[in-house]
Amino acid sequence: IYSDKVMDHFNHPRNVGIIEDADGVGTVGNPVCGDIMKMYLKIDHGVITDVRFKTFGCGSAIATSSMATEIIKGKTIEEALTMTNAAVAEALDGLPPHKMHCSVLAEEAVKAALADYYTKR
Amino acid sequence: IYSDKVMDHFNHPRNVGIIEDADGVGTVGNPVCGDIMKMYLKIDHGVITDVRFKTFGCGSAIATSSMATEIIKGKTIEEALTMTNAAVAEALDGLPPHKMHCSVLAEEAVKAALADYYTKR
Ligand code: FES
Repeated sequence: IYSDKVMDHFNHPRNVGIIEDADGVGTVGNPVCGDIMKMYLKIDHGVITDVRFKTFGCGSAIATSSMATEIIKGKTIEEALTMTNAAVAEALDGLPPHKMHCSVLAEEAVKAALADYYTKR
Repeated sequence: IYSDKVMDHFNHPRNVGIIEDADGVGTVGNPVCGDIMKMYLKIDHGVITDVRFKTFGCGSAIATSSMATEIIKGKTIEEALTMTNAAVAEALDGLPPHKMHCSVLAEEAVKAALADYYTKR
């Protein structure tokens, strides 16, 4: 039921970890399952130069977060803000409909981290 | 928010995998989050001699399944049937209330695998 890309990002998630001196940190919880996701960003002149995430969430949450970090790395803040969970799921060749709620975590964590960045400045 | 035992079983889950010639296989889905769990049993003279599981579920599902396999290994079918998700969560020194629904997967997968065993005989 899961695409090869989902399985790949689940088994070998990219950019897992934390950034000690992050410029923005976003923590979001999933109202459906109660899982938590934390996203760390380094930002230089409006460009996301590094990103890491940590989650206790399920395979779909891990795969979408991993893909989301690859999508936004090297992008400007404006570009990152246009990333939707549907686009992340599409980049993974889709998710089962009942697991789309997991992909919301990644989008919201990026937005929360960017909001944190603006608040801190 | 997670106990040391939960983190231990999440980071080093016991008995992950499949059993090719299993005597009973149980597949269950979680109505809350849509996650799936598969449990494989080897049974000899009414005793569970081996057990493996596979899940795409979250950290709490992984930890409870791992603990559940340790609890039922070497037990009789009758003893295994009395294992509740609350007992598994307690053996892990507890789970956050909003993650208790994840522990249900382990209990139900064991029961489904035992039902499959009885159906096959
Ligand atoms: S959130 Fe699905 S099993 Fe935990």
